[in-house]
Amino acid sequence: MKYGRFEHSGRVFFGTVEGDTVHELEGSIFEENDAKPTGARHALKDLRILTPCMPSNFYCAGLNYLAHFDWASERKGLKRSPPKKADIGYRSPNALTATGETIVIPADSEGPVQYEGELVAVVGKTAKHLSEENALSCIFGYTLGNDLSERSWQASDRTLWRAKNCDTWKPMGPFIVTGLDPMDLTVAVRINGDTVSVYSTSRMLFSAQHYIAQITKYMTLHPGDVIWLGTDNPTIPDLKHGDVVEILQKDIGVLRNPVVKAGV
Amino acid sequence: MKYGRFEHSGRVFFGTVEGDTVHELEGSIFEENDAKPTGARHALKDLRILTPCMPSNFYCAGLNYLAHFDWASERKGLKRSPPKKADIGYRSPNALTATGETIVIPADSEGPVQYEGELVAVVGKTAKHLSEENALSCIFGYTLGNDLSERSWQASDRTLWRAKNCDTWKPMGPFIVTGLDPMDLTVAVRINGDTVSVYSTSRMLFSAQHYIAQITKYMTLHPGDVIWLGTDNPTIPDLKHGDVVEILQKDIGVLRNPVVKAGV
Repeated sequence: MKYGRFEHSGRVFFGTVEGDTVHELEGSIFEENDAKPTGARHALKDLRILTPCMPSNFYCAGLNYLAHFDWASERKGLKRSPPKKADIGYRSPNALTATGETIVIPADSEGPVQYEGELVAVVGKTAKHLSEENALSCIFGYTLGNDLSERSWQASDRTLWRAKNCDTWKPMGPFIVTGLDPMDLTVAVRINGDTVSVYSTSRMLFSAQHYIAQITKYMTLHPGDVIWLGTDNPTIPDLKHGDVVEILQKDIGVLRNPVVKAGV
Repeated sequence: MKYGRFEHSGRVFFGTVEGDTVHELEGSIFEENDAKPTGARHALKDLRILTPCMPSNFYCAGLNYLAHFDWASERKGLKRSPPKKADIGYRSPNALTATGETIVIPADSEGPVQYEGELVAVVGKTAKHLSEENALSCIFGYTLGNDLSERSWQASDRTLWRAKNCDTWKPMGPFIVTGLDPMDLTVAVRINGDTVSVYSTSRMLFSAQHYIAQITKYMTLHPGDVIWLGTDNPTIPDLKHGDVVEILQKDIGVLRNPVVKAGV
């Protein structure tokens, strides 16, 4: 099943998506009582697509694919070993934006600004102390994310605050799809229609299951929380003013965002 | 004015605090229309005090006082210069807990686990591109936080995830007080009734105003967001099972939490 969050005439609601039709739901897909169909139908094109959830906790697996890790290390002139543990990072909800919305690069960014196309696990149930075997029992479904990254700030700053969390720098969506195997999906990235990266989630260094088991040793996962699962491959070419960047997976759809540089 | 968030018989509400009395408010203190008094009064002792807000974005100034920085550097055997820029860090809302609630140290922590008593700025208005001069115009008021830290995980992990963000490791409260000067407050820490740290917020390396101006160059601050402003001094003695740790400031009150180690 494919779920989304939508806005129409100022009203915000969840819905299920079938082809070009959205069936409106009453209530939240993240609350205990299942959201119920209202009977209302909408043409998808008449609705504004919102981020499919607004997480309270925004987890992010850094450096979770070898080809990306090796490329990033070489770019930085570092000889280093791949992570030996699934240490989790964080992003901040201020940066979330929906498909179709514009990514804005601040005027003082020297760049490069790069995409990172990622699979995102969306939590559906409160969970703690899960094993790898039952880790996915807390997951509602999967969506896509673009972990925009400013490489000069990533190098110069003590934290990833502005390198990763500027407003509009975390596009997420378009929809949440249930029933997928997170370890067997193909994620692609296009810039201006040209495919620039294709990878299989089977190449994660630490599986979605392992990350969830590790997180829930110490932290309670809450409905609507998200876990971004990292990216593979070099993340080039750099993004520039006027580009359109897309993250794609065949079941989830296309997360498409135009890019502008402020002050240009 | 002193504001809090409370629970009574399963009902959650904001209130103003005068002495031992809480005047109930209708609505959120973080919404556009001011929360209005309902006329209902409660004895403070009859209410459960909750964290005064649940932030969407949880900002944290790391290493913002020299005496703490020097002590932490020496403890780690590092020769390093104090931060030259106000790079902001993040914590995660899963870890928030209220005054009176128990801090739980996971069974596999080798410790030491230490307190960090901090002043917390609570955002009241949506804000971007503030200058240092008008930075405080977006702040609703101030509360206290205890940035619990597990020093062995802080050393061994690539990020601060479990070193800082275990469930219950971010006590915040008890109340939000308006009209304070964030650069002229005295924050103290007590363990089992003994004062173990006292410092003035006038000694921040980067002021609250500077942090807010920096953040809002890139990020929109939202009502209810919090900015934890760092701690001064060594953060010893280590916390152990059975301790009670308190963060105090005379206008805001006492943030008091017992400590237990899981499995003891």
